[in-house]
Amino acid sequence: MNLDPIFQSAQEAFLHYKNISGKDKAAFLRKIAEGLEAEKHSLIPMASEESNLPEGRITGELGRTVGQIKLFANLVEEGSWVEAVIDHADPDRAPAPKPDIRRFLTALGPVVVFGASNFPLAFSTAGGDTISALAAGCPVIYKAHPAHPETSKLVGQVIHKAVIESTLPIGVFTHVEGGIEVGQALAKHPTAKAVAFTGSFAGGKALFDAASQRKEPIPVFAEMGSVNPVIALKEKLGNNMEALAKQFVASLTLGAGQFCTNPGLIMVPDIHAEEFAKAVKNELELITAAPMLHEGIAASYYNALAILQGRKELEWVQVAEAKDLIKAYPALAKIKASDWLEDEHFQQEVFGSFALMVVYEHFNELYAIAQRLHGQLTITLWGEEDELAKKVDLINQLEEKCGRLLFKGVPTGVEVGYAMQHGGPYPSTTDSRFTSVGAYAIKRFARPIAFQDMPHELLPNALREENPLGIWRMVDGEFKR
Amino acid sequence: MNLDPIFQSAQEAFLHYKNISGKDKAAFLRKIAEGLEAEKHSLIPMASEESNLPEGRITGELGRTVGQIKLFANLVEEGSWVEAVIDHADPDRAPAPKPDIRRFLTALGPVVVFGASNFPLAFSTAGGDTISALAAGCPVIYKAHPAHPETSKLVGQVIHKAVIESTLPIGVFTHVEGGIEVGQALAKHPTAKAVAFTGSFAGGKALFDAASQRKEPIPVFAEMGSVNPVIALKEKLGNNMEALAKQFVASLTLGAGQFCTNPGLIMVPDIHAEEFAKAVKNELELITAAPMLHEGIAASYYNALAILQGRKELEWVQVAEAKDLIKAYPALAKIKASDWLEDEHFQQEVFGSFALMVVYEHFNELYAIAQRLHGQLTITLWGEEDELAKKVDLINQLEEKCGRLLFKGVPTGVEVGYAMQHGGPYPSTTDSRFTSVGAYAIKRFARPIAFQDMPHELLPNALREENPLGIWRMVDGEFKR
Repeated sequence: MNLDPIFQSAQEAFLHYKNISGKDKAAFLRKIAEGLEAEKHSLIPMASEESNLPEGRITGELGRTVGQIKLFANLVEEGSWVEAVIDHADPDRAPAPKPDIRRFLTALGPVVVFGASNFPLAFSTAGGDTISALAAGCPVIYKAHPAHPETSKLVGQVIHKAVIESTLPIGVFTHVEGGIEVGQALAKHPTAKAVAFTGSFAGGKALFDAASQRKEPIPVFAEMGSVNPVIALKEKLGNNMEALAKQFVASLTLGAGQFCTNPGLIMVPDIHAEEFAKAVKNELELITAAPMLHEGIAASYYNALAILQGRKELEWVQVAEAKDLIKAYPALAKIKASDWLEDEHFQQEVFGSFALMVVYEHFNELYAIAQRLHGQLTITLWGEEDELAKKVDLINQLEEKCGRLLFKGVPTGVEVGYAMQHGGPYPSTTDSRFTSVGAYAIKRFARPIAFQDMPHELLPNALREENPLGIWRMVDGEFKR
Repeated sequence: MNLDPIFQSAQEAFLHYKNISGKDKAAFLRKIAEGLEAEKHSLIPMASEESNLPEGRITGELGRTVGQIKLFANLVEEGSWVEAVIDHADPDRAPAPKPDIRRFLTALGPVVVFGASNFPLAFSTAGGDTISALAAGCPVIYKAHPAHPETSKLVGQVIHKAVIESTLPIGVFTHVEGGIEVGQALAKHPTAKAVAFTGSFAGGKALFDAASQRKEPIPVFAEMGSVNPVIALKEKLGNNMEALAKQFVASLTLGAGQFCTNPGLIMVPDIHAEEFAKAVKNELELITAAPMLHEGIAASYYNALAILQGRKELEWVQVAEAKDLIKAYPALAKIKASDWLEDEHFQQEVFGSFALMVVYEHFNELYAIAQRLHGQLTITLWGEEDELAKKVDLINQLEEKCGRLLFKGVPTGVEVGYAMQHGGPYPSTTDSRFTSVGAYAIKRFARPIAFQDMPHELLPNALREENPLGIWRMVDGEFKR
């Protein structure tokens, strides 16, 4: 596949599109949202059929997708996200006059976005990566996920229509189909300026390596999932055994366990381990096994379990029998903390509804686990307030291992807001300094540029003296609007 | 060299130091500034002797170094740099209650900083990289530059004293000496979380490659210099021939041309090329050749010139004769734009006071040059206001190739303020999304973390409801203090 014409068209579009007003960008994004809503009667059954996810879940996901688009439309329409900073000149400064310098965020350039299999809408064609890149002013070359080709194509058409109706250059969005080779070629194309990906560690790491080894290395935002440890402290668990078991199992089995925030690791104190395992088992028995996204993913799930079943350190609370080729029967195994600490393999994600229950004896073991943990999207710490108050050192250590630290509830259900951080230390993502969910996701696709002594008529509106956009700016060190 | 104890000490220091208040961090930083000022009568002659830079220049650099430290002290004392964001809970939201999520920036972890030969103070031991990392809450493992070992050691002692006097763990700052192997080992150590470097492309690229190929890849902020093109438009140049020649030569030969913003490329319209070349030559003849940092750098300078002297496309306006082994005699050569466009080699930086004058015939050639340019720290565009107004497309294209775009003066003299962007597209730096000079340099060493439903007493001060620090925060989507 010759990708040059695609990237040439994207680059041409970029030089125009990056400069259109926040209002115009917002109008364009809202047209995409309206287009998705107009197609919902086709989209919902189509995405459901292609992903095996129930229509209810897809309906929710469509709502989330539309909500995300509106969040970014509002963000760019308001405009303060560009971090405008003005340092005024001082011609009288000694020993040398001070120049006028104005800085703001400008779009990076054409971005390659990869769709995710587990979110055919919210993390795919018009998902958070595409929309935050478009919001930042970057054209998107979108590589469709082969697990939901028709859904992707239809959403691609919706975006294309919005491009045309907004009289934008067609290179603002390009829908590309293909396999791994096409994906690699997209990430390696010299015109690409960034890559966004949600999926497996192997997939994300391959893109990261390709992008870092280019003649011009480019950033890769790969969200590669994690085991999202849940840590139960003694009192809290003892006081809420049934309720916590219920919450945990609901989170573990949601969407057949195919969420990047799926809790695949839970640490419980030995005193409650047996009782809690029983409570979890009772809940698991109430779960109807749900079909996974496709047979390949189900096969990987059962293969990973088969490998773990060969490990003598594990005691199985619930074994998943592969009763058919597609459904995920949930599974749970127990392991002693001392054994878990011996082998990093126990930290590997099993994509699906499997959890490993690590039984700890002492607080020291828990702290050692916290030190040894790989980087995670989330960590959840269940404790009574007085228990937590005594665990400041543990909390301090856990902060180093995750992007989001929860003290109630479960990690699934990622809020799309301003404060969300969906991105954690490696290997959960390739760049912990950014989020792929929430308003700040836009920052991935922009870089600062400073203008020194630029004639006032040439300044972008965000940096003009009179602040025509009415945005928040830092002027001579003070925030102002 | 066994680096484990160094990193273990840094990691232990980190878990404490990251959490100290902005006020305490500011007091610590100010102690470093005071220590440098107290040692100035030793430091200035020492740094001057080790670097061959005149005492006047070093005195200015010390002032800049102290000024930078105070800027970061003020920044962390004020505290808003942590980008605190609060999304309040909404227990009544349907279909699911909304949790309380609070996000801010937290320190990355131990950072490895490499000193630069051309700034023995401002980009070295207590330079911008070290200070911005310390300001962010990261311990620093500092690799001294072998070109100024005594200066580095003395500044290291000043920092160490400030650590002790502030009763901080000694692992907050470690001074390490050694060669390239030690540098590589530091960047590869599993406990290191980021690398900052100012120097050559080869040095920066080697660190970037090492850091990306680690088991856990880490960010590298390598500022690798550039040729900082100056583009002269016809009218402006015709109206200010002598003044611009004087400015240009002063910038080109400042500090023997050893600045990362040294203008090594200048584009002039053919109609004025001969006259401007003559004006530049007249100015160059008034320059007294200054000694370079060391003989190795001077040898590289003359080697690079010798290679260019073999290129038939160049017409030499001023040839640098290597009259001794250390001084940089400035040099200037002319080339036709059409020839320049044929070979990327003409874009390579010659570290020292050499400039290549590219003579363009048409605006189209200038635009083609702008498209072909490698990433730069700065680009300077000299034009009359009415000339510039007609060059919007050129300006738009130039923005893609630099971090700072100047419309007056010369690129040397990098302001240390809020709006400065010292960092441009690859290969001028390895990460165009960050700056290594100015207040925003602190952002390189922090990542966001979100707390979901954290008990209020456990929240860091920046995120407590009553805003005890009085910082700017985004609360439910609105900026507030």
